[in-house]
Amino acid sequence: MFCDVQATEPDIKISLTRVGITNLKKLVKIYRGNKRPIILLPTFEVFVDLPSSQKGIHMSRSPEVIEEVIENLVIKETYGLEELSMGIVKKLFEKHEYASRAEVLIYGDYVMEEKSPVTNKESQEICKIISRAYGIKDSEGNICIKKMVGAEVVGITACPCAQNLLKEKAIENLKEKGFSDEDIIKILDSVVVATHNQRGIGTVMIEVPNGYNVSIGKIINIIKKSMSGEVYELLKRVDESYVVEMAHRNPKFVEDCAREMIKKIVEEFKYLPDDAQVLVRQVNKESIHRHDAFAERHSTMGELRRELNM
Amino acid sequence: MFCDVQATEPDIKISLTRVGITNLKKLVKIYRGNKRPIILLPTFEVFVDLPSSQKGIHMSRSPEVIEEVIENLVIKETYGLEELSMGIVKKLFEKHEYASRAEVLIYGDYVMEEKSPVTNKESQEICKIISRAYGIKDSEGNICIKKMVGAEVVGITACPCAQNLLKEKAIENLKEKGFSDEDIIKILDSVVVATHNQRGIGTVMIEVPNGYNVSIGKIINIIKKSMSGEVYELLKRVDESYVVEMAHRNPKFVEDCAREMIKKIVEEFKYLPDDAQVLVRQVNKESIHRHDAFAERHSTMGELRRELNM
Amino acid sequence: MFCDVQATEPDIKISLTRVGITNLKKLVKIYRGNKRPIILLPTFEVFVDLPSSQKGIHMSRSPEVIEEVIENLVIKETYGLEELSMGIVKKLFEKHEYASRAEVLIYGDYVMEEKSPVTNKESQEICKIISRAYGIKDSEGNICIKKMVGAEVVGITACPCAQNLLKEKAIENLKEKGFSDEDIIKILDSVVVATHNQRGIGTVMIEVPNGYNVSIGKIINIIKKSMSGEVYELLKRVDESYVVEMAHRNPKFVEDCAREMIKKIVEEFKYLPDDAQVLVRQVNKESIHRHDAFAERHSTMGELRRELNM
Amino acid sequence: MFCDVQATEPDIKISLTRVGITNLKKLVKIYRGNKRPIILLPTFEVFVDLPSSQKGIHMSRSPEVIEEVIENLVIKETYGLEELSMGIVKKLFEKHEYASRAEVLIYGDYVMEEKSPVTNKESQEICKIISRAYGIKDSEGNICIKKMVGAEVVGITACPCAQNLLKEKAIENLKEKGFSDEDIIKILDSVVVATHNQRGIGTVMIEVPNGYNVSIGKIINIIKKSMSGEVYELLKRVDESYVVEMAHRNPKFVEDCAREMIKKIVEEFKYLPDDAQVLVRQVNKESIHRHDAFAERHSTMGELRRELNM
Repeated sequence: MFCDVQATEPDIKISLTRVGITNLKKLVKIYRGNKRPIILLPTFEVFVDLPSSQKGIHMSRSPEVIEEVIENLVIKETYGLEELSMGIVKKLFEKHEYASRAEVLIYGDYVMEEKSPVTNKESQEICKIISRAYGIKDSEGNICIKKMVGAEVVGITACPCAQNLLKEKAIENLKEKGFSDEDIIKILDSVVVATHNQRGIGTVMIEVPNGYNVSIGKIINIIKKSMSGEVYELLKRVDESYVVEMAHRNPKFVEDCAREMIKKIVEEFKYLPDDAQVLVRQVNKESIHRHDAFAERHSTMGELRRELNM
Repeated sequence: MFCDVQATEPDIKISLTRVGITNLKKLVKIYRGNKRPIILLPTFEVFVDLPSSQKGIHMSRSPEVIEEVIENLVIKETYGLEELSMGIVKKLFEKHEYASRAEVLIYGDYVMEEKSPVTNKESQEICKIISRAYGIKDSEGNICIKKMVGAEVVGITACPCAQNLLKEKAIENLKEKGFSDEDIIKILDSVVVATHNQRGIGTVMIEVPNGYNVSIGKIINIIKKSMSGEVYELLKRVDESYVVEMAHRNPKFVEDCAREMIKKIVEEFKYLPDDAQVLVRQVNKESIHRHDAFAERHSTMGELRRELNM
Repeated sequence: MFCDVQATEPDIKISLTRVGITNLKKLVKIYRGNKRPIILLPTFEVFVDLPSSQKGIHMSRSPEVIEEVIENLVIKETYGLEELSMGIVKKLFEKHEYASRAEVLIYGDYVMEEKSPVTNKESQEICKIISRAYGIKDSEGNICIKKMVGAEVVGITACPCAQNLLKEKAIENLKEKGFSDEDIIKILDSVVVATHNQRGIGTVMIEVPNGYNVSIGKIINIIKKSMSGEVYELLKRVDESYVVEMAHRNPKFVEDCAREMIKKIVEEFKYLPDDAQVLVRQVNKESIHRHDAFAERHSTMGELRRELNM
Repeated sequence: MFCDVQATEPDIKISLTRVGITNLKKLVKIYRGNKRPIILLPTFEVFVDLPSSQKGIHMSRSPEVIEEVIENLVIKETYGLEELSMGIVKKLFEKHEYASRAEVLIYGDYVMEEKSPVTNKESQEICKIISRAYGIKDSEGNICIKKMVGAEVVGITACPCAQNLLKEKAIENLKEKGFSDEDIIKILDSVVVATHNQRGIGTVMIEVPNGYNVSIGKIINIIKKSMSGEVYELLKRVDESYVVEMAHRNPKFVEDCAREMIKKIVEEFKYLPDDAQVLVRQVNKESIHRHDAFAERHSTMGELRRELNM
């Protein structure tokens, strides 16, 4: 009898931390009462652990779990990406009875409506939303699930250092041409001084403890407002000029963007407990280099509050 | 007898344009007399056509050809990427006696030394170099090979339109504050006005007719000099300020970069015949949008000369 | 007056073949009478040409065109991806009055329902669908648009050559062990002989002349049926065994897959005129190599019919 | 005075875990006594932490550190990738005096010679090698650096489950045709039964405690020997048949490959202390699915030894 090789004892008796599938795409419709459903085509990664006594997991049960959970989404009235990931983790435990850990990562493009800042031209805006859930089953079968939600958003960042250097040089030039200190203040108020600016990508992941709620919409907004300015797919000339001016009046290092996100998270999600995990990351695709600039903080709400005295 | 299925007649008797392998990486050392050898780790794509009378090509002969040609590179005194690609095309015909067309594409990172513009700090600079060769064998066995070489280089581009809009507004502001027209000219000469700027990627491919020579080094230089400014991996503060100022004093649309490359190609490669193919492409990773801006020209040296009256 | 720099004469008076934007993502819902709407999140590339007399295109008009066309999709009763791309090309001419050429490329993931072959387990299946439209405006303002539609589908391919070599060796082994020729025929009929098999990716693009219709669904089906077998996201044990056996009973070279697609296209799209363009491509991610195998045919319906005598 | 904005106090006083640059490529030549130098074109990621009291890191010092360390590589007689990464971490502390943590990740393609298994045809083989170093500086200025080295190697994996199912069916078929149990044993010994097989990617990272040595060459070998078989860029017909047969005589689940790597690591690196970290990962690009199969273990040498009683 050859069948169910997976359930046999392996030759090398060692447990594995994560066994599962990656790179699986599914269409998901999240229905929210009267609102239009959210449509996503995300990628899934799902894993369970495997004890040393068993040769393999029943691999096909993992995509099966995703299918079943997605299909039943329509039934629920309110539902977020974190409920989706929690539902998958619960089902993973049901189907993989040998597992003591189960994990899912979901990420995909999310479409929103945006309006250009001056002419109010409407267009679609796209950012990436992310959800991760991780469950542990103790020896008595009690399951404890932790989950995080987050987003990755593109914006514009303008460098404060180069702008200051160009301001210094402008002042020197203006002094040479005989302008007074008073004039120079007026001039620098009137003329937006150049600096290098670039695509920035902000990422935030926040733990959602059981009984709590964290709005991905608010996370997206925090990321947007933490760079020098927002970007748009459709800008008429006056919009473009406005976006450039605003970004240059709000220059930010990669570190500034990360810190701004942290501050806004601490303000917005006051109600979250001290042990809620927070990850904040900013990557700037530098326009003066081939490489990228990077800043990151991995911490808890409690630690961040203490550091900020908030 | 089962063997050599490839040489049998196929059920569906139809010829194929290109059969071969892609995604093959090899280390290549190009020796150039006394100079240090050029080291590349490029990706290869090699193809031959297949007549309707034969089921399959002898697939393993294609990577074999590349191995042999690469191994023998050391023997030759002077050798460029276009000779490498030509050598591969010739060998492809030898090994695939049924082929009437053979083609190779080689592309990979190329490392150069660069110095930062003010402090002369040395660092490595990387761009992509590309070579393509395409051969046709006529019914009498004569082989005619066409080959192109080129490069893809990263630089910085600053938008002239947004800069003009911000200049207009600056002038308005300055007038309101009582500065004279004469003052304003002096001010705009002294202060570098902001605009959005971003990573630009310029690509040039030029046909190298037999008996002619096209320097990839010169192509790289043309691409660099056609954007608003060059980028560097290592910039001290004064270098950074210099790079930003220079780029803003030389703002360019994506179209301007493409046209500048064309003009410089026509000037630099005067000696190339009229039918030599030229491809020029510029992509700007816009800092105010999530999408990219794109400009391209595919033409011949003759056409470009006529349009430019050069 | 600084404004509308784009409309001014450029310093370097040379025309450009393609100017536009790439890497733009939009949510598209295609409504089809009573059927459920098709939901796509495709990437767009849109281009127009630029005469030598004008400095730049009005870049923002290109994403605007896409927004407008997508928004109005809901109005139409029947609509395919090729109408979407044609609609965009028409609008590009309206908005870029200086253009004599306009082009759009749309590609994105498309979700279908699939059932596993034995147990009929339902799951989602994803392939890529593609649409390209290209328009030329003559001196009298008449616009001629050509359009292509297509798809890229993943399947499994099993190598006939290695299978034959293993069959030869099996026969040798069996003879040594004293089995008769008659026995050996029975044995090879009963036992599926091994070979290397791998992910294959088939691509087809077909021109859709005005007044004609080409179903992307039929293209997807042709690609699926041209490899050794179909792949699935959800397979129970008996399904898996069935898929493996079927693929091994239908071994195919990369060239065979390309030819099979061509034959099926000629059969299915009999009604298409002789000058309709056809592109067929197969890439196999070889399991015994790090590189990929590749076969391609670029031709017209007429040529393909002549070669096949169909 | 505008300069050195980075050294000023930030508005939001919060420390950051990692600030630095990513996506930086450099050519590295590692000289090893009389042996040919190893040539790499790896990508670098370098980070330091940033205290809450300082606005920004001096970004340009990070690529400078890499340049300096790479330049001085030639001086040392023996040198491995882990010394390179350790050297960079040390220099990061020197240049970023405010940092209490420093980190570098280096990864890139590594070229080896390989011979096909039967005909001994020589060709180049490419795998990815990886090095990570992480340093902590305590309040007295003592620096403690941890480092890991590893590799990512492509091979072939054949599924034991599908092969068993096809064996079962073969036995059924053979019995129906009247073959005896004895015959059937002989037959299954003579004929290699089919299964699905695919590209597998094995990854191993091992901590190298100070004073210890871990050979990346040995890691590469362990990964290769832990899948069903090795892959090659150049295989003549008899080689191909050999590779396919060997892989099918050694079928392995994704979990088996991970476990095999662990066992071989425990055997090979007996001398490593109990707290040395070990990461093992296997990803199979399934030929019967669009998604990938995945297995991973993150542990220490001590834990692995205990589980294996070795």
